[in-house]
Amino acid sequence: MTGNRIVVYKGPGEVAVEEVEYPTLEIPAEVANWLGIKRSAPHAVILKLVTTNICGSDQHMVRGRTTAPVGQTLGHEITGEVIEVGDDVLFHKVGDICSVPFNIACGRCRMCNEGKTGICLNVNPARAGAAYGYVDMGGWLGGQAEYVMVPYADFNLLKFPDRDEALDKILDLTMLSDIFPTGYHGAVSAGTTTGSTVYVAGAGPVGLAAAYSAQLLGAATVIVGDMNADRLRQAESFGCATVNLSTGNSLADMIADILGEPEVDAAVDAVGFEARGHGEGASEAPATVLNDVMSIARAGASLGIPGLYVTGDPGAVDDAAKRGQIGVRLGLGWAKSHQLVTGQCPVKKYNRQLMNLILADRAHIADAVGATAISLDEAPRGYAEFDAGAAEKFVIDPHGMIR
Amino acid sequence: MTGNRIVVYKGPGEVAVEEVEYPTLEIPAEVANWLGIKRSAPHAVILKLVTTNICGSDQHMVRGRTTAPVGQTLGHEITGEVIEVGDDVLFHKVGDICSVPFNIACGRCRMCNEGKTGICLNVNPARAGAAYGYVDMGGWLGGQAEYVMVPYADFNLLKFPDRDEALDKILDLTMLSDIFPTGYHGAVSAGTTTGSTVYVAGAGPVGLAAAYSAQLLGAATVIVGDMNADRLRQAESFGCATVNLSTGNSLADMIADILGEPEVDAAVDAVGFEARGHGEGASEAPATVLNDVMSIARAGASLGIPGLYVTGDPGAVDDAAKRGQIGVRLGLGWAKSHQLVTGQCPVKKYNRQLMNLILADRAHIADAVGATAISLDEAPRGYAEFDAGAAEKFVIDPHGMIR
Amino acid sequence: MTGNRIVVYKGPGEVAVEEVEYPTLEIPAEVANWLGIKRSAPHAVILKLVTTNICGSDQHMVRGRTTAPVGQTLGHEITGEVIEVGDDVLFHKVGDICSVPFNIACGRCRMCNEGKTGICLNVNPARAGAAYGYVDMGGWLGGQAEYVMVPYADFNLLKFPDRDEALDKILDLTMLSDIFPTGYHGAVSAGTTTGSTVYVAGAGPVGLAAAYSAQLLGAATVIVGDMNADRLRQAESFGCATVNLSTGNSLADMIADILGEPEVDAAVDAVGFEARGHGEGASEAPATVLNDVMSIARAGASLGIPGLYVTGDPGAVDDAAKRGQIGVRLGLGWAKSHQLVTGQCPVKKYNRQLMNLILADRAHIADAVGATAISLDEAPRGYAEFDAGAAEKFVIDPHGMIR
Amino acid sequence: MTGNRIVVYKGPGEVAVEEVEYPTLEIPAEVANWLGIKRSAPHAVILKLVTTNICGSDQHMVRGRTTAPVGQTLGHEITGEVIEVGDDVLFHKVGDICSVPFNIACGRCRMCNEGKTGICLNVNPARAGAAYGYVDMGGWLGGQAEYVMVPYADFNLLKFPDRDEALDKILDLTMLSDIFPTGYHGAVSAGTTTGSTVYVAGAGPVGLAAAYSAQLLGAATVIVGDMNADRLRQAESFGCATVNLSTGNSLADMIADILGEPEVDAAVDAVGFEARGHGEGASEAPATVLNDVMSIARAGASLGIPGLYVTGDPGAVDDAAKRGQIGVRLGLGWAKSHQLVTGQCPVKKYNRQLMNLILADRAHIADAVGATAISLDEAPRGYAEFDAGAAEKFVIDPHGMIR
Repeated sequence: MTGNRIVVYKGPGEVAVEEVEYPTLEIPAEVANWLGIKRSAPHAVILKLVTTNICGSDQHMVRGRTTAPVGQTLGHEITGEVIEVGDDVLFHKVGDICSVPFNIACGRCRMCNEGKTGICLNVNPARAGAAYGYVDMGGWLGGQAEYVMVPYADFNLLKFPDRDEALDKILDLTMLSDIFPTGYHGAVSAGTTTGSTVYVAGAGPVGLAAAYSAQLLGAATVIVGDMNADRLRQAESFGCATVNLSTGNSLADMIADILGEPEVDAAVDAVGFEARGHGEGASEAPATVLNDVMSIARAGASLGIPGLYVTGDPGAVDDAAKRGQIGVRLGLGWAKSHQLVTGQCPVKKYNRQLMNLILADRAHIADAVGATAISLDEAPRGYAEFDAGAAEKFVIDPHGMIR
Repeated sequence: MTGNRIVVYKGPGEVAVEEVEYPTLEIPAEVANWLGIKRSAPHAVILKLVTTNICGSDQHMVRGRTTAPVGQTLGHEITGEVIEVGDDVLFHKVGDICSVPFNIACGRCRMCNEGKTGICLNVNPARAGAAYGYVDMGGWLGGQAEYVMVPYADFNLLKFPDRDEALDKILDLTMLSDIFPTGYHGAVSAGTTTGSTVYVAGAGPVGLAAAYSAQLLGAATVIVGDMNADRLRQAESFGCATVNLSTGNSLADMIADILGEPEVDAAVDAVGFEARGHGEGASEAPATVLNDVMSIARAGASLGIPGLYVTGDPGAVDDAAKRGQIGVRLGLGWAKSHQLVTGQCPVKKYNRQLMNLILADRAHIADAVGATAISLDEAPRGYAEFDAGAAEKFVIDPHGMIR
Repeated sequence: MTGNRIVVYKGPGEVAVEEVEYPTLEIPAEVANWLGIKRSAPHAVILKLVTTNICGSDQHMVRGRTTAPVGQTLGHEITGEVIEVGDDVLFHKVGDICSVPFNIACGRCRMCNEGKTGICLNVNPARAGAAYGYVDMGGWLGGQAEYVMVPYADFNLLKFPDRDEALDKILDLTMLSDIFPTGYHGAVSAGTTTGSTVYVAGAGPVGLAAAYSAQLLGAATVIVGDMNADRLRQAESFGCATVNLSTGNSLADMIADILGEPEVDAAVDAVGFEARGHGEGASEAPATVLNDVMSIARAGASLGIPGLYVTGDPGAVDDAAKRGQIGVRLGLGWAKSHQLVTGQCPVKKYNRQLMNLILADRAHIADAVGATAISLDEAPRGYAEFDAGAAEKFVIDPHGMIR
Repeated sequence: MTGNRIVVYKGPGEVAVEEVEYPTLEIPAEVANWLGIKRSAPHAVILKLVTTNICGSDQHMVRGRTTAPVGQTLGHEITGEVIEVGDDVLFHKVGDICSVPFNIACGRCRMCNEGKTGICLNVNPARAGAAYGYVDMGGWLGGQAEYVMVPYADFNLLKFPDRDEALDKILDLTMLSDIFPTGYHGAVSAGTTTGSTVYVAGAGPVGLAAAYSAQLLGAATVIVGDMNADRLRQAESFGCATVNLSTGNSLADMIADILGEPEVDAAVDAVGFEARGHGEGASEAPATVLNDVMSIARAGASLGIPGLYVTGDPGAVDDAAKRGQIGVRLGLGWAKSHQLVTGQCPVKKYNRQLMNLILADRAHIADAVGATAISLDEAPRGYAEFDAGAAEKFVIDPHGMIR
């Protein structure tokens, strides 16, 4: 095997499928040099992709809202079949079908020891934490491809126990690499428990996964807010209440109409920094969603913030936001003794238990988020439709393995 | 007994000791009316003050930074002797000497049931949570006085087991009503544990109490930052490292000089919204301290934020800050997976265990914060000196009971 | 109103409905004397019973396995309507319909402050913790009656928000006083979470409630074990797998048949000290269930033990067991790093959130446990049938209020 | 290098230093065969021992209380210098001085992912969890030797930041491999926190380490109980109160004499199954200490049980105990809502933070436990003296590196 077709960023609004070299069992040079270790990686495997999903955070790059260079390879939601193993891969073998957490983690540093795999200390010279196919995330090859290298494979891979069963449920299982755990993390971080009332801001795939997870966690009522009617219908399809933020009505009033009181026990910001003000035609306002969420979360609540906030945003509305500094109503949160839980989901913390639920037929996340299979060549169309607001989660099937 | 001398706000920069009516076993009319219950309070006691401290948060009112009206009674750090009990006070008796948490709590609502006494639902029409002698906090009489009424006394009072022992250690025990638990809460919220490196922003009494608490929690090294050299010396007196923020050096560099790395495991913002920029003559910049703390807290850290942030600040530097909206570098915190823990300390959660430590002679908080006894008539001087930056914690002794 | 009909223990195997005096707003003399406080209770209410259930732990007394004297009043699963309030009952009024936790708690002691209402320090001279109508539990009147006194009512009562809604769902809501929270506590204590495999020993009402709660907590698979086929069918009715322990097959083998491995993530002992050995005709063996549960719980598991173990058992099989000392395979648990979580459920910790779930139509506990309404006069028959192994939970309806 | 001198069990009461082969970078054949993986271990290192301590749990084997065969190599408390590294050891290099947790863990299984390194699933065919030089623990070579092989080295090794500093504090740092974390785990598991009163049963090295850790955790008072006066004096040397159990006085009374009440907040069983009854000449009674600890722990307490309980004990006093089944007063614990926390300490959970404390000069564990350096040839004498009750912790120095 000498080639590898992969999705590449070609400039604002544009992606293409290009041919690159077949991956090797080596870590990126920038990581090896920074650590002072060799590139050769006996801990790594090569996976043949079974599925690889398009993520909302890919869109930040594709919209030109980051410093991603033209040529950046894309894709961090990876499910694949092991086809080559390094000399120190002991617990996975060729033929295993596995989910790969989007956060690359070494399994050997203090943060990994504590289960904080989203901020591994050994995978990215720029900061704690890394991901496949992402700007400033360590230079690891993207996974919207035919093949991908996964380092520290015994630590990072989650093996599905049975190959046939895995392929039968692949549209659910493919969500374990990112959005199902990320949504679940949002719901957990918000303190969702048996009997909670929950508000989820944003009905994109992460928001829908957070809402679905809140139900799994025993929420009494889950309310999802967005300005996109199609996505709200998707939330209703699995039993959520919804509020349409484009109506200009007060969020608190709309919640009170549903619950009889204007506050919820738990709230999730599944939007992040590309938030817009409410109402038709509202412009971007990066702290809007966070401030909303504070305003309707009960005193003593915890706010789950899986929505991405960035340290620099070249396309931001003002200079402060360009540096990642935004106008938070911290006084309001403080008066309510809120806790804010930020950051990337540490996928490994949750993926095994969510897999068990899927395999026991007790979680149907693919339906909840509108999973839609496409070929690798259709990836550019998938990006475009997703960016236009389709209530779908696109799952790329590079080798035609989805049944 | 027909009178009660009490400290009263008289306008920006001015307090006075005035005579008001002797307190009754009644809750404020505004609270009773809002709840639709009677004012008469069989659950209440009258305390003769043993000690009552001046708090940094009193200064926010006295500086005219709040909407407190002239005539607002002051004081929420209360230690006293029970001299009258209501008909449903069963577990406290006349003669008991008790500490009173500054947060007034009913002990009967959902929040109190969960231990969140800082946001009791039954004591303040304006919002969750109340305090004695504070604007927008329910209209409860202040405790910098000769006498004070404490409602829900069996729930709110912490009895000292022995009267003599209590009076012997009164300068330590008086800190249990607010700053010792508040500092401890800051250190706990920041995740301080055995072996942690800790940064505390602010060397006022709460910051010193947080630093002292971090030591009690087993921190390896505690670093305190401030621009006031006297207060930094106070921090050094009990073994803290310090950084002087008026030097203009980078905080990260100063921390690296001490620890060998520019980050700490745990960080506490003990300053809040009246923060100033660094360096001599820097002007007020309400998110400065919080952003500082984010910048030097390790990835995965929790930020303890006992420093007060407000929902409205008439004296703020800009319109956003006047509404409590400030420029937080949320993207930085998000990239580091920080957790932000805000709000008033729920004193009852900690005061018993800290009392036990004081009584076992294992905590000397009075020395750490520079406790200084003054008479009730000296309260105006205490306010002035504290506002001028004295490295002291003023303890008012209305009846000359301090030994 | 001058009388009160109530269920009374009349000797081994016998209960009767008798007339006693109408309750007063007073605590038991033995409690008042021990505390050195007055009997009169301004904190108390009188409830007219709406429903009051027969509990498995009542059977321990009725079987003569305790030191309960003839004349002991019975009943601690209480739901009622407030018909009289003391002078310090501020947040509940005549006409409110409320659930009453079986554990009597003062709301004012250290344990109540910590949420440990099962071991309140102020309600029972004999030990920490009390209950209505139970031997050695403080002398509080039983609640299988027309009327009952509830002390510290603002703390103990859980008000249903709407009277009509409450009466419509009364067979579900009546389970909030004991078995639903107790079962839930067992499942939570066992560490049940999303995706867990769970084994519940015992298909009596508490076991069924634990199994149902495990599902609410997101378990992948719940297995219930018992020797009573009717009760196992009840468990199957809501989707549990079951194992019949009377077959003599190995528990580990039967679990492996279901799960593909002989261990579970979480295990609950919902039987307690009156356990029997396995197989037909097996005799009593008080540690059998606990040792079983250890044997099939995964290394690192937590064991939830809501099943009752006693300090003295006059009818035990040997002298050690008569003193509450039983042969535990502690070495096995130690080798597996098990945690054992014992004790009465602190009902207040869970009843509000479970109520919310019932009111949102997301929990149907009455069906799960086989709720069956009977009149007060039918109580003796209910006791007899329950003791004979009926797969029913008897709900006494003293005033014909069940719709 | 072709040889390796090592301590070996020679039969009841006897150990010797023998010559074995120099270790290789291979895992034991029994582990490799069971897992179906190769023996060659690119993840492993060879350490030259710097220090290696004699542990109380070694004594169980040497006393003949286990099924350890003659020839069993001994030693699991390992501190060493890296002298050879496998191909996949990336973050440790030749010359690093490191502490090795006694629990061998793969860092790649579900239990290791959850931080439960004491019950790793990939290191022992007999059960979850393994250790160096221990019967039924996977067949790993002992570490009371000149050289030892450590597998999964990037996961298992804790590197000391500076070689000189490490050698200066080596008598403290050597305790990080087992007893300091084990004692700390006991204190943490017992719920020790700021202001707690704590009882530690047993003044051997683990008990002393638990008592010292309880102080680090902020205990108000720590009481240590034993029948050995020398060991009690050792506990007093760092500020503990003590009770001598050989006096025949009631434990509750002796505690009440110290605290004014007969119960403590937190209790640790640092003895385990080889417990004896109280008083002079009392015989072995395997549940005595656990039942003691239950009797004096407050309602709601957690019991930390680092003391070893075994699944089989050939030398036990009765048949049940030979199977690891002992007479626990479970009813008493249940009535008090106790939690029992059992099992081996997962050393990695604590060793880094305790190292930081030692390096910051804030923990002096060597003094607390009476560290005493001996040569490898003196190991037999060390075993004998320790078994005879010496209040010392013997630290073997195979290469004369202790300064």
